[in-house]
Amino acid sequence: MLRLFRKRSDKAGLPPGTMVHMGEQRIETPRITMIDYDENHVLERQVEAPEDCLPFRDAATVTWINVHGLHQPEIIHQLGSYFGLHPLVMEDIVTTDQRPKMEDHDDYIFVVLKTLYHDQKDDEMKAHQVALVLGSNFVMSFQEAEGHVFDAVLNRIKNGVTRVRAAGADYLAYSLMDVVVDNYFALLERLAQRLDVLEDRSVMEPDPETAQAIHSFRRDLVFLRRSVLPLREAVSRLERSESKLIQQPTAVYFRDVYDHIVQVMDGLDALRDMVSPLLEVYVSSVSNKMNEVMKLLTVIGTIFLPLTFLAGVYGMNFRYFPELNWRWGYFFFWGLNLGVVVVMLAYFRKKRWF
Amino acid sequence: MLRLFRKRSDKAGLPPGTMVHMGEQRIETPRITMIDYDENHVLERQVEAPEDCLPFRDAATVTWINVHGLHQPEIIHQLGSYFGLHPLVMEDIVTTDQRPKMEDHDDYIFVVLKTLYHDQKDDEMKAHQVALVLGSNFVMSFQEAEGHVFDAVLNRIKNGVTRVRAAGADYLAYSLMDVVVDNYFALLERLAQRLDVLEDRSVMEPDPETAQAIHSFRRDLVFLRRSVLPLREAVSRLERSESKLIQQPTAVYFRDVYDHIVQVMDGLDALRDMVSPLLEVYVSSVSNKMNEVMKLLTVIGTIFLPLTFLAGVYGMNFRYFPELNWRWGYFFFWGLNLGVVVVMLAYFRKKRWF
Amino acid sequence: MLRLFRKRSDKAGLPPGTMVHMGEQRIETPRITMIDYDENHVLERQVEAPEDCLPFRDAATVTWINVHGLHQPEIIHQLGSYFGLHPLVMEDIVTTDQRPKMEDHDDYIFVVLKTLYHDQKDDEMKAHQVALVLGSNFVMSFQEAEGHVFDAVLNRIKNGVTRVRAAGADYLAYSLMDVVVDNYFALLERLAQRLDVLEDRSVMEPDPETAQAIHSFRRDLVFLRRSVLPLREAVSRLERSESKLIQQPTAVYFRDVYDHIVQVMDGLDALRDMVSPLLEVYVSSVSNKMNEVMKLLTVIGTIFLPLTFLAGVYGMNFRYFPELNWRWGYFFFWGLNLGVVVVMLAYFRKKRWF
Amino acid sequence: MLRLFRKRSDKAGLPPGTMVHMGEQRIETPRITMIDYDENHVLERQVEAPEDCLPFRDAATVTWINVHGLHQPEIIHQLGSYFGLHPLVMEDIVTTDQRPKMEDHDDYIFVVLKTLYHDQKDDEMKAHQVALVLGSNFVMSFQEAEGHVFDAVLNRIKNGVTRVRAAGADYLAYSLMDVVVDNYFALLERLAQRLDVLEDRSVMEPDPETAQAIHSFRRDLVFLRRSVLPLREAVSRLERSESKLIQQPTAVYFRDVYDHIVQVMDGLDALRDMVSPLLEVYVSSVSNKMNEVMKLLTVIGTIFLPLTFLAGVYGMNFRYFPELNWRWGYFFFWGLNLGVVVVMLAYFRKKRWF
Amino acid sequence: MLRLFRKRSDKAGLPPGTMVHMGEQRIETPRITMIDYDENHVLERQVEAPEDCLPFRDAATVTWINVHGLHQPEIIHQLGSYFGLHPLVMEDIVTTDQRPKMEDHDDYIFVVLKTLYHDQKDDEMKAHQVALVLGSNFVMSFQEAEGHVFDAVLNRIKNGVTRVRAAGADYLAYSLMDVVVDNYFALLERLAQRLDVLEDRSVMEPDPETAQAIHSFRRDLVFLRRSVLPLREAVSRLERSESKLIQQPTAVYFRDVYDHIVQVMDGLDALRDMVSPLLEVYVSSVSNKMNEVMKLLTVIGTIFLPLTFLAGVYGMNFRYFPELNWRWGYFFFWGLNLGVVVVMLAYFRKKRWF
Repeated sequence: MLRLFRKRSDKAGLPPGTMVHMGEQRIETPRITMIDYDENHVLERQVEAPEDCLPFRDAATVTWINVHGLHQPEIIHQLGSYFGLHPLVMEDIVTTDQRPKMEDHDDYIFVVLKTLYHDQKDDEMKAHQVALVLGSNFVMSFQEAEGHVFDAVLNRIKNGVTRVRAAGADYLAYSLMDVVVDNYFALLERLAQRLDVLEDRSVMEPDPETAQAIHSFRRDLVFLRRSVLPLREAVSRLERSESKLIQQPTAVYFRDVYDHIVQVMDGLDALRDMVSPLLEVYVSSVSNKMNEVMKLLTVIGTIFLPLTFLAGVYGMNFRYFPELNWRWGYFFFWGLNLGVVVVMLAYFRKKRWF
Repeated sequence: MLRLFRKRSDKAGLPPGTMVHMGEQRIETPRITMIDYDENHVLERQVEAPEDCLPFRDAATVTWINVHGLHQPEIIHQLGSYFGLHPLVMEDIVTTDQRPKMEDHDDYIFVVLKTLYHDQKDDEMKAHQVALVLGSNFVMSFQEAEGHVFDAVLNRIKNGVTRVRAAGADYLAYSLMDVVVDNYFALLERLAQRLDVLEDRSVMEPDPETAQAIHSFRRDLVFLRRSVLPLREAVSRLERSESKLIQQPTAVYFRDVYDHIVQVMDGLDALRDMVSPLLEVYVSSVSNKMNEVMKLLTVIGTIFLPLTFLAGVYGMNFRYFPELNWRWGYFFFWGLNLGVVVVMLAYFRKKRWF
Repeated sequence: MLRLFRKRSDKAGLPPGTMVHMGEQRIETPRITMIDYDENHVLERQVEAPEDCLPFRDAATVTWINVHGLHQPEIIHQLGSYFGLHPLVMEDIVTTDQRPKMEDHDDYIFVVLKTLYHDQKDDEMKAHQVALVLGSNFVMSFQEAEGHVFDAVLNRIKNGVTRVRAAGADYLAYSLMDVVVDNYFALLERLAQRLDVLEDRSVMEPDPETAQAIHSFRRDLVFLRRSVLPLREAVSRLERSESKLIQQPTAVYFRDVYDHIVQVMDGLDALRDMVSPLLEVYVSSVSNKMNEVMKLLTVIGTIFLPLTFLAGVYGMNFRYFPELNWRWGYFFFWGLNLGVVVVMLAYFRKKRWF
Repeated sequence: MLRLFRKRSDKAGLPPGTMVHMGEQRIETPRITMIDYDENHVLERQVEAPEDCLPFRDAATVTWINVHGLHQPEIIHQLGSYFGLHPLVMEDIVTTDQRPKMEDHDDYIFVVLKTLYHDQKDDEMKAHQVALVLGSNFVMSFQEAEGHVFDAVLNRIKNGVTRVRAAGADYLAYSLMDVVVDNYFALLERLAQRLDVLEDRSVMEPDPETAQAIHSFRRDLVFLRRSVLPLREAVSRLERSESKLIQQPTAVYFRDVYDHIVQVMDGLDALRDMVSPLLEVYVSSVSNKMNEVMKLLTVIGTIFLPLTFLAGVYGMNFRYFPELNWRWGYFFFWGLNLGVVVVMLAYFRKKRWF
Repeated sequence: MLRLFRKRSDKAGLPPGTMVHMGEQRIETPRITMIDYDENHVLERQVEAPEDCLPFRDAATVTWINVHGLHQPEIIHQLGSYFGLHPLVMEDIVTTDQRPKMEDHDDYIFVVLKTLYHDQKDDEMKAHQVALVLGSNFVMSFQEAEGHVFDAVLNRIKNGVTRVRAAGADYLAYSLMDVVVDNYFALLERLAQRLDVLEDRSVMEPDPETAQAIHSFRRDLVFLRRSVLPLREAVSRLERSESKLIQQPTAVYFRDVYDHIVQVMDGLDALRDMVSPLLEVYVSSVSNKMNEVMKLLTVIGTIFLPLTFLAGVYGMNFRYFPELNWRWGYFFFWGLNLGVVVVMLAYFRKKRWF
């Protein structure tokens, strides 16, 4: 469960605003990319030092500063100071177990969200934190890991034929959130497929691995819910926001993102409703199977009981024992046995006991 | 579960407003029917090209454009452009896994709802998306499949004696939603009948198929809830709407639709309350039945134990063994056996063990 | 479950306001009774034709029109037209599976509620729909079946000594709703008694009938909840109503009805909380009992095992076999057996296994 | 369950305001005590006839009229009329199965609450109804049974050193409610102790009495919740009340009562959360114990199987049977047996089967 | 469960505001520390008598009075009187089973919260109550036990380089609450680790201790929820407070504390969602394991049945019994046995019964 609760206790007692990177170091060197564009030009470049961004702060063009890797807090701190971020915001950026949230700081809007992916190695859902800062003419995005989730937006800007080039920083922020949320649908599909498999397995192959798989499916659902649910409120507040940073035509797009999140939550709820009785189904399948085995074994045992009794009878040593001296006594015994077996099989078959 | 989560991930990363038909191709060629009417005349015709609808956009009469089949987005796009639809609305029309919703775009109201039916082949509930656009003097309806759900309304218009001819576009939109919702009641009845069968089976025939049937009943309920619940909010917003597109006398009718949806939700909740303990009932029936069998087999086994013991006794080879030499020893043995069996049967019967 | 979902699908596609009687025909001929009264006079009479009521519509006295039987919609339709009811209201009156509700139509208030009773024949709860229309000086009540629920109010009016004669139509409507709600308490008591029986049976006599009785108790609770819960909201809206049809002093009385409904809901919730773990109790009792039986049988079996083994031993044919030649060998065998049985019984008794 | 639902159905159909004492007669003769006090004097006396209270109605001092026993409705009626109570309030006072509630009747505030106690005889929680009427300078309290719950307040008034003497009628009402609520904490403690016992028993002594004790614990919780939960809302409304009957400084004290009720509800919720999985724990303990027994018996049985087989083998009558003629054959047989038993015991021990 | 419900009943009936220390005496002598500081100076000293604090009441500097140990109510009472606390507040300070809460008394804000820790001895979660009083230029903190939770803040003040020295009393109150809440994260981590262990154990080692550990985990969760949940509301009210005691820039910090509490609640909910199906998993593992054992034993038993039967057969005493006289009869018997065993093992193996 440690993915749910990253080690945070070391920080207890430190003054607020202390920037200690909370999270694993997922990338070697932090990497800062800057894209500056308006309808007519695009400029992309790797930033060496945070102060290189400074000239673009007050430019009329839209500037997107994309930071990968958060384990050198001093870089985030410098960037944050140049763009006037509150110390608590900077602390939140590097503390990567934030709940998704939206904070309106008048001069800028701060949004935390999660990119989710399925970690093949540990075979469970994992999340990376993405922090966005939307100013009047800039967007800063902070990712804790190297990722390609924003490449689609980047390409659209560079190709220059889409709406994003003509629109402002708010539309860029929307576009970034939209690609993050769109990826949730892929996870939903994968979960739905896993559920289908689990449903079949819990009826057909009810072995202990199935119980564990059901349990770990539930864990993933709990994890996803925690990553997506708070985002719903955050985006809803963005959509209804009175902030001057979000222009009227862009608000419609944020409503669309909101709709998508609601749809994802809806899907998660449906999956939860479907998975919760599955353990019961599994248990009933297990005991069904077990019962069948035990019944069959008991039936076999019951068939042998009269036979063994008969064999015992004819092993008795009574002096006056008519059958023992019959010419065909022995064969009479086997005939008797055969009769008993046939009658019992017929009876059990009729009762559908095997 | 794929009916819950249609493949949407392919679209991730595409710019918003991109119209990719999401859903199966359920019909060969898209078909557009147009009905133009007022109190005095009716005109129905098949539309060849979207531009044929253009002249009716600003006419005083009520125009109903009914589109079947959504897999040629360019047609929807043309139609949408003529009638001034927002790109996101057009995208929603062709993405057929929308949640039911209502959006007020000032010039028109956009409503998404679901027609539900029981697919005989897969033996499960399925849904088709129906999108409605209500303008001041037109209604556009988009169905992803060929369906006859609107035929009743069509006939009423053509026959011309009902209120619908005299009323405006809002009343037409209401009529279309009303027939969709009315069909939900038929589904409820069918579900209630299935539940009755399930209740009997889970007591009388608790075989594994019953468990699966209970589980798939639950799936259908989850599916229905997801299709109907959001509609409640959508219609409630329509009813309370301040939009100039909905006239005062029509609002009463939307309240009626709202009442019907509440009734359907109510029924679904009752069904859920009834089905949820059914798996428990089933499990207890299974173990009851199993227990009866095992008890009977064990009783049989227990009866043979002393008999086999007695046969063993008289097979012993002690030199001094009085009974073996009795004249009627052998018959004494059988008498003893008979006595033991009678006493045990009487005891077990008294204890009601069989 | 068909009592929960009356056949309504036949009506799908008919224009709204179409009056088709939905429900069983519970009474041969519809019967209309009219009582007209004020503080000084009472007039009761059977109405032959709806138009006989017309003169009383605008009289200063309070008029109560009580209709039994709804399967001749044309009569309801005539009455409704005389008193200015909306077509949808008339439709709701004859469609007897409405949820309880309250609608304020300015000129009149329309209330739907349910009288509940225990049907001896089918051994389950059933409901009859009662519709009330409260005008400024009249009350119309529509019952789908012949019933005596309103007789108490009728007698109070005829006896003429109670508040009802002096008060207006709103107080009459209150009185009718009050007697309906008062009857719910009798049902609660009956349910509480059934629950007491079920609790005892699920511990003492856990047979399959008990499981079914628990399940059908739950069904009745679900049914009652559905009939009473919406009424709470309806009466709450009546109490807070701004309608000029309800005078200030009467509002206190509606609050009293509201309190009663809350009390009934409260009781239903308590019953539900008590019945929901009962199936678990039942299952644990069943398996307890079964376990006792199996344990006893297994104990019996285990006692015979060493005996049979010993008999087998002394049936062996070894040439050198000391005991066989002992003088008291045979009695030694029986003594050995006795010793084994005593030791085992003592052990099992000490372990409390039987 | 009849303590939850007192017989109320007899009253169905009676006109509202009819005072029929609903509840058992818990006290022989109703007894009325009156205490009249201000900062300087106290007057306590037994009231013979209700009219004795009349002179104090308009006095400047605070008057507390305490009534024990409600089965002579005419006395309540007289008192009520002198102090101007609404007929429905008088009806509620004698109908002792009211939900806790608060009603603001402008001239007075009517509060219903419950004193709870553990009935030793029936071994279950029971409740007595206490009704309070707070006027501008008087408080009336109605208890259905002789009780000493208010003695502490009485003594404080008589001793005359506490705040209550200096404060008004509202503070007296607060004091009465405070002692009632304080008693709930004692019940919570007792319940917590019972739960501790149940938790131990359901693991250590899982006999059917434990299941019944768990079930009856749940019943008591349901009963308490129903008695306390509505009080929370009632007191919350008192605290926020705009009524001129409650002065500003006293409102703080009502908030304190409110806090206590919330704490009690909190405790009840915690108890419910703890008791709900207990039946599961019990069932798992039962089956654990049972399993151990069955496993041990089966192990014993399994050990005897090869022994009996061996004895059977050496009882065979083959003409050529080497072992039978061995000198030490018989002892070889016992050695074989010993070997088999040792190997099996070692195997079973290793598998931890006993 | 007594940690949930401290003995409070002794207090029932005492007048409100009576200060009886409710809680264990956790510390020998109460100890009062006072720190007085502003940006330029710090003064720390042990306070002998409450009146020593009096001179600092109206000083311009920030004064923090930290009290350890509450069992001498007269000291609290004196301190409280000097600083103008309401009697009910003083009562709440010494009654250490308060729910976390926030009360705005205009001149000061009263906050109750809990420090949580894991008691090694009893192996369960325990809580200490911390009460904070925030005035315009002072903060009083009351702890029932000697604890070091506030040492971090103390050191920050003494070192004098952090924001806390420059800010007012509100920031000091925030800092104290922040360290308390930060400690919750450490508890969450510990719980997450315990859950991991429980999940493994309930699949791999399903012994009764596991069931008890699951149950006690649940108890700890219930306990934590009760300690943290009310704090959320309290802090939320602090953050939104209009009180002049909390300055605008500090409100942002209280929002941060609020965010942390939400995160903790979130984590607790996730843990609850994960632990609730664990008992089911445990039960299914137990019965799985048991089933395996029983199946294996039954398989062994079933294999010996035909063997014993065969041995019985050849122990029969028929006069005409061909096999008995065969030269290799005895070996034929063993061959037969071997054949039977091989066939049965092959069959059972194929069926995967062992």
